[in-house]
Amino acid sequence: MRYCALLFLCFSLLTNILAQQKTFDLKESVLKQRALSPARLNNFQWIPETDEYTICSADWKSLQRSTVSSEKSTELTNVNEINQKLGTSFAHLGFSSWVSKEILEVSDGGSVFALYNVVSKTGSVHELPENAENAHFHAASKKIAFTIENNLYFLESDKTYRPITKNKDKNIVSGQTYARSEFGISEGIFWSNSGALLAFYQKDESAVHDYPLLDINQTPGAVKFIKYPMAGQASEKPRVGIYNLKTKKTAFISPRSGIDSYLTNVVFTPSEKYLLVAEVNRDQNHMWLNLYDVKGTFIRTLWEEANDKWVEPEHPAFFPSNNSDNFIWISEKNGFNNLYYCDIKGENPKAITSNKFVLKEILAANEDGTKIYYSATGPNPCNTLVYECDLKGNNRLLTTQEGTHRFALAPKGAYYFDAYSSLEVANKEQIMTLNGKIAKPLLVANDQLADYEIGTTEIGTLKANDGSALYYRMIRPSNFDPSKKYPVLVYVYGGPHAQMVTNSWLAGANLWMHWLTNQGYIVFTLDNRGSGERGFEFESQIHRQLGTIEMEDQLTGVNYLKSLPYIDGNRLAVHGWSFGGFMTTSLMLRQAGVFNVGVAGGPVTDWKFYEIMYGERYMDRPEQNPDGYKNNALTNYTKNLKGDLLLIHGTVDDVVVMQHNEALLKSFIENGVQVDYFVYPMHPHNVSGKDRAHLMEKVLRYIIENNQ
Amino acid sequence: MRYCALLFLCFSLLTNILAQQKTFDLKESVLKQRALSPARLNNFQWIPETDEYTICSADWKSLQRSTVSSEKSTELTNVNEINQKLGTSFAHLGFSSWVSKEILEVSDGGSVFALYNVVSKTGSVHELPENAENAHFHAASKKIAFTIENNLYFLESDKTYRPITKNKDKNIVSGQTYARSEFGISEGIFWSNSGALLAFYQKDESAVHDYPLLDINQTPGAVKFIKYPMAGQASEKPRVGIYNLKTKKTAFISPRSGIDSYLTNVVFTPSEKYLLVAEVNRDQNHMWLNLYDVKGTFIRTLWEEANDKWVEPEHPAFFPSNNSDNFIWISEKNGFNNLYYCDIKGENPKAITSNKFVLKEILAANEDGTKIYYSATGPNPCNTLVYECDLKGNNRLLTTQEGTHRFALAPKGAYYFDAYSSLEVANKEQIMTLNGKIAKPLLVANDQLADYEIGTTEIGTLKANDGSALYYRMIRPSNFDPSKKYPVLVYVYGGPHAQMVTNSWLAGANLWMHWLTNQGYIVFTLDNRGSGERGFEFESQIHRQLGTIEMEDQLTGVNYLKSLPYIDGNRLAVHGWSFGGFMTTSLMLRQAGVFNVGVAGGPVTDWKFYEIMYGERYMDRPEQNPDGYKNNALTNYTKNLKGDLLLIHGTVDDVVVMQHNEALLKSFIENGVQVDYFVYPMHPHNVSGKDRAHLMEKVLRYIIENNQ
Repeated sequence: MRYCALLFLCFSLLTNILAQQKTFDLKESVLKQRALSPARLNNFQWIPETDEYTICSADWKSLQRSTVSSEKSTELTNVNEINQKLGTSFAHLGFSSWVSKEILEVSDGGSVFALYNVVSKTGSVHELPENAENAHFHAASKKIAFTIENNLYFLESDKTYRPITKNKDKNIVSGQTYARSEFGISEGIFWSNSGALLAFYQKDESAVHDYPLLDINQTPGAVKFIKYPMAGQASEKPRVGIYNLKTKKTAFISPRSGIDSYLTNVVFTPSEKYLLVAEVNRDQNHMWLNLYDVKGTFIRTLWEEANDKWVEPEHPAFFPSNNSDNFIWISEKNGFNNLYYCDIKGENPKAITSNKFVLKEILAANEDGTKIYYSATGPNPCNTLVYECDLKGNNRLLTTQEGTHRFALAPKGAYYFDAYSSLEVANKEQIMTLNGKIAKPLLVANDQLADYEIGTTEIGTLKANDGSALYYRMIRPSNFDPSKKYPVLVYVYGGPHAQMVTNSWLAGANLWMHWLTNQGYIVFTLDNRGSGERGFEFESQIHRQLGTIEMEDQLTGVNYLKSLPYIDGNRLAVHGWSFGGFMTTSLMLRQAGVFNVGVAGGPVTDWKFYEIMYGERYMDRPEQNPDGYKNNALTNYTKNLKGDLLLIHGTVDDVVVMQHNEALLKSFIENGVQVDYFVYPMHPHNVSGKDRAHLMEKVLRYIIENNQ
Repeated sequence: MRYCALLFLCFSLLTNILAQQKTFDLKESVLKQRALSPARLNNFQWIPETDEYTICSADWKSLQRSTVSSEKSTELTNVNEINQKLGTSFAHLGFSSWVSKEILEVSDGGSVFALYNVVSKTGSVHELPENAENAHFHAASKKIAFTIENNLYFLESDKTYRPITKNKDKNIVSGQTYARSEFGISEGIFWSNSGALLAFYQKDESAVHDYPLLDINQTPGAVKFIKYPMAGQASEKPRVGIYNLKTKKTAFISPRSGIDSYLTNVVFTPSEKYLLVAEVNRDQNHMWLNLYDVKGTFIRTLWEEANDKWVEPEHPAFFPSNNSDNFIWISEKNGFNNLYYCDIKGENPKAITSNKFVLKEILAANEDGTKIYYSATGPNPCNTLVYECDLKGNNRLLTTQEGTHRFALAPKGAYYFDAYSSLEVANKEQIMTLNGKIAKPLLVANDQLADYEIGTTEIGTLKANDGSALYYRMIRPSNFDPSKKYPVLVYVYGGPHAQMVTNSWLAGANLWMHWLTNQGYIVFTLDNRGSGERGFEFESQIHRQLGTIEMEDQLTGVNYLKSLPYIDGNRLAVHGWSFGGFMTTSLMLRQAGVFNVGVAGGPVTDWKFYEIMYGERYMDRPEQNPDGYKNNALTNYTKNLKGDLLLIHGTVDDVVVMQHNEALLKSFIENGVQVDYFVYPMHPHNVSGKDRAHLMEKVLRYIIENNQ
C-alpha cells in the first residue's frame, strides 16, 4: 500500500474486507455493536479439583460439561431442573459458579442465592429481603452479608438475619464501596476464608456536600441529593470494621495518618489472624501497607512508599497459598507494577518480577502456591498477555500469540483456558498446556462483520515531544482512495487509567466509527501521555496540569494527520466523553482553530468541580495548586472558540456533575460567544440503552453538518 | 401600494422612513432598544392642590416646576440639596412623589424613605434594616410596613420597629404578594387611609411542593428550593390579617368557601370601618365580594358572580370619594369589564358603563367623586384611550387621538396630563383641558430611528373561523420588493392577558425584529383568540383546551401569509417565549410541516407542570380535565416533528420550571427524534441584561441558518 511508507509504523494490521455487500445505518451501528461482535463461549469455568469444565448453552439455560481430553460435551444440569429441585425461579444460569467439585452456586444476580449439588440434585436456597443490596454470599458457611440502606446485615444459614451496624444517621454508611471506587475499590464487604470474620468499609459522609439532581420522573420534579465531595472540600471519613460472627462484636480501624486518609485494598490473611489495609494519606503521595490483628490492633507496617506525584495502590495483597500468610504485593515504585513476595513478619520483600512494562493483575497461583500467573502488556502496550513466574523470580510468557487474552488456570495446574482476540483474530478460545500447546481447540469465531462494509483499521505509533511512543488507531473508509482528501474525526479520551488503542478485535473501536468511515471520514484515536498501561513516567507527566501535556500529544497526532496527503486539514473534528469531553473542549478552546468542530459529552470544565479522590490525586487541592487549576479551567478560555462546539450532559450525571457544563455555558454567554448544548434527561454520566442511538446521531450529525 | 388590495385591513399605518443611512447590528438592536426609543419626560407629576407640576431633569437629579399657564420652568429642588438638608445619600430623584402641596416623598427604591418640605427645606428620614423587603411607606402617619424573611414588621416614626407577625415556621409568610400574583395581586401590605390599620396577606405554604433549582454560582453547586404549587396538587392556604396599630392586635379573615380558595383585591373603605375582599373558589368559577368589619367579622356579600368558565376579579373596589364608603366595582359579567356603582349597604349596584369593549383600569376620580376616569380600548382594541363617566352613567371619550395614552388628572380637575404614542406618533406629551383642547404642549418626541434602516410596520386584521377579528402586525423590509419571495418569522405569544399588536410606536415590536427585516425577512405577529383586551367571549374560548384554538388562529395567519404573492410559504419560522414557547412548540409538533424552523423559549410543554392559580383557571385540575391536559401536552406529539426546533430554558426559571423542557426532551429522545436545546445558566424565566444579546443571536442565527 502506497501510503504505508509515510507512516512510522510499529505494526500495521489491516482488517481483511472480503465481501462488502451489507451496510448498517447509524442506529444499527450503535445498537447492534454487541450482536455483531464475534461469538464467545458462555461462561467457561473449570470444575474444581478436576480437568473438567462447563460452558453455558447459547440460551444460558443449560450447563454443558466436558473434559480436556473428550471431544464430546453433555448436559450436566439446566435451569429447569434446578428450579424444580429447589423450588426457585431462576431465569437462566448466567449467574452461576462452581463452589466445589459437585456444588454449583446459582443466583439471580441480586437477592436469591442457591447451592445445588449436581450429583445428589439437592441443595439449599438463601433469599434476602427485597431491599437488600451489595449481597456477598459466602458459600462455604452459607452466609450472606448485605446492606439495606446505610446499614450492614448478614443472613444466617437458618434464614434469620441480623444487623451488624445499626446507624440511624444516614451519613454513616457501612458495607458499600467507598472513596468513589478509586484505589481499585469496588465493594465494601470482605469475608475471611472460613466465613468466621467479615470486614467492611464504613464511611462517615456527614461533612460531604449534598449535590442536588433534579428528578423529572416525578410530578412535581423533586430533588435527589448525592454526596459529592468536591476537590479541596470536606471529604469522607473512613473506618474498616471487623465483625466477628461468633462474638457478634465489631472492631474498628481508623486511618493512622489523618481522618480523611484512605483505607484501601482490605484483605484477611488466609490464617484469619490478620487484616491487611493499604492506607494512603489525603495528599495521595504516601502509603503504608498496615497489618492489624482481627481485633483491630495495629501490628506493623509491611510496606511504605512515598512519591512526589502520587502513590496509588490498586491491588490487595495476594496469597499464593492458603497455608501461609506470606503474600505478593504489587508496587509501581520502580516505574512499573512489579511483584514483591512479602513475609508477614515484615522481613525484606523480594522482587519476583522486574518488568519494564505494565503488569495488570495477578490471575491465579498454582495449587501449592509456587507459581503465579499474571496479565501484563509485554513490550507492546496494546497487548494483554499472560505470564508465569515463580517465587524465585523466574518469569516466562505463556501466551505466544499477540493480542488481548483472557485466562483461567485449570485446578490441577496442567492446563489453562485461553481466549484471545487481536486486530487479526476475531475471537479464539482454546485449552492450552502450560508448555504452550493447544490441548483442545474450543472456538474460532467468525468475523460477523465480514459481509458488511466497514473501514480498514491500522495501529501505529508517533513520537511525543519527550520521545515517548504514542499509539494511535486509524480507521480509513473501505473504498479509501489516497488521491482524495478526507475529513477526520479524532475520537479522544486521554485520561488516566484508560487505553483506547488495544490489540483486540477492531482495535477497541466502536461500530459507529465504521459507520462514519462509510460516510467518507477517517476516524483517528491516539493515547496521549497520562493514559493507561504505559507505566508511571508516561502516566504521571500530567501531574498538577491535567489537560496540558495531553493536548500536546493530541496535537502531535493532528500534525501527523495534516502531514498526510489524503487528509483535509481544514476539516478536522474532535469528539470525546468525560475526560474525553474535557479534552475535546480543551482542544477547541485552548488550541482554537485546529479543529473545525467539536462535540464534548459530560466534560470536566474546571477541576474544582470534580471529586476529591480522583481530582486531588492528579491536581492536588485547589489551594495547593492555584495555577494548575486556573490554567486548565476551560471557563477561562471561552472567548477563544473558533468553529462549532456542542456540549452534552446527562441531567443526573453523578460523576461529572452538570455544574461543569453550566458554568462553562455561563462563561460563553458572558463573553457573547455562541456554543451549542444538549442534555439527556434522567441519564447519568453515560447515555446507555436505546437512547444511545439518539446520542450518536446527535453527535455525528452535528459533526458532519458543521464540518463541510 | 399594490399589495394593499389583498389585505382585509382595519387600518394600515406605514411608518415613514425618510433617511435610512444608519444601521444597527443584532447586538445593538437588543441592547439599544431603550436608547433608541422616543424621548419621554421624566416622571411628570401634578403638585397636589395646585395647577403646578414637576418633571425630573434628564439626569434625574433636579426637579423642575412649572404651571399650566407659564412658559417657563424653574428648579424647585435637587438631590444634592435634599441630601445636604436631610443627611441622606440619594443618588437621584427617580423615586420621588408628591405627598401634599409642599411635601415630597423621596426614596432609594428600597429601604430609605424621606419626607422633604420644599418650602421650609426640612424633613424627616426613615430608614429600614438592610434585609427589609416589600416596604410600604404611609407618608401621612410616617410609618413603614415591611417584611423581613417571612414576617411582617412596621417602623414607627420614632424609629423603633415592631413585629406584627412572629412566625418561626418559614412556611407561614406574611406581607408578601400571594397566589403567584394572579387576580391583580402585586403586593401583600395594605394601609388604611389614616394609617391606623394595616391589612396584609398571610399564606401557609406548608403543603406546597418544594421545587429544586440548581445554584451553580456556589461551589459545590447547591439547591435553592422554591415553593411551586403545581396544577391539581396542594395549594397555598391564605388569610388576610388586619392589624390595629393602636390595640396592637391582629384579626384574621379566612376564606369562607374552602381553605385553598383565593382572597383577592383587598382594600379598606375610606371610613376605615370595613375591609373589602374578593373571594374566589379554587375552581375559579365563583366569586364573592365580601364586606368585613375591621375586627374580621363578616358582614355581607356585596357582589356575587359565577361562570361556567372562570371569574377573575383583578381590580379592588374603587372609592370615588373619601367621604363615602360607596364604591365602584369592575365586573366582566356581561362579557366586558364595566363599572358598577355599589352601595356599601348592599343595595342593588348600578351600571355606570355598558361598553362593548375592554375597560382596562380606573385612573382617577375628580375631587368630589362625581366623575370617574378610566382607560379602555374603545372600539379598536389596539388603542388605549381615556374615558370620563359620571355616576349617572354618562360616558364620554376624552382622548380624541387614537393611540396608547397615559393620563394624570390635575388636582383641581380642570386639566389632565396626556402622553401618547401610536404607529404614527413617536411620543407626544401635553396638558389638555377637559374640553379636549391643548392647554400646554410639553413634548413632541423625535423618531430616534429616523436615520436608521428599519422595516415598514403595518397593522391589519384577519377573520377567525368564528368570525372574530384577529389583529396582526406585519413588518416588511425597508427595501421591500413585492415581486420577490420573502421568508417569514412569526413571532407569537398567544396567551391570556397579553396583547402583542398595539397602536403604539413600532406597534409594540422589538428592534431585533427590524434587524431581521434588514436581513430580508418579514416579521409577522397575530393576537389569537384567548389573548387580551378583547373581552370574555374572545378570551375564554380557550377554556380547558389551552393551545388548540390559539393554534387555529395562528394558522389563519399562516394561510393569509401563504396567500400573499411575496411570501415564500416554504420558509416560515416561528418563535416565542413562555406561552409563546408553548405556542411555538405546539405549532411545530401539532401542525408539523407548516413551519420550517421554530425556537421556543421557556415553553410550557404540559399544563400539569404549570402552577395552580393560572393553570387551573384555564385548564381546571388534571383529574377534572384529563382529555384537555392530554390533547395539549406536547410530550405526546414529539414523533411528529418536521424541520428544526430549538428549545431554550433559563436554568433557574421559577415560572415555567425546567421540568417542562426536560420532559419534552425525554420524549423526543425516547422517540428517536432529533431536536436542539440550549440553556441560560442562572437566568430565570426571561433572559435579561447583556446576556439578552447572546439569546437573540442564538435565536435568530438558528432561524436564519435553518430556514434557507
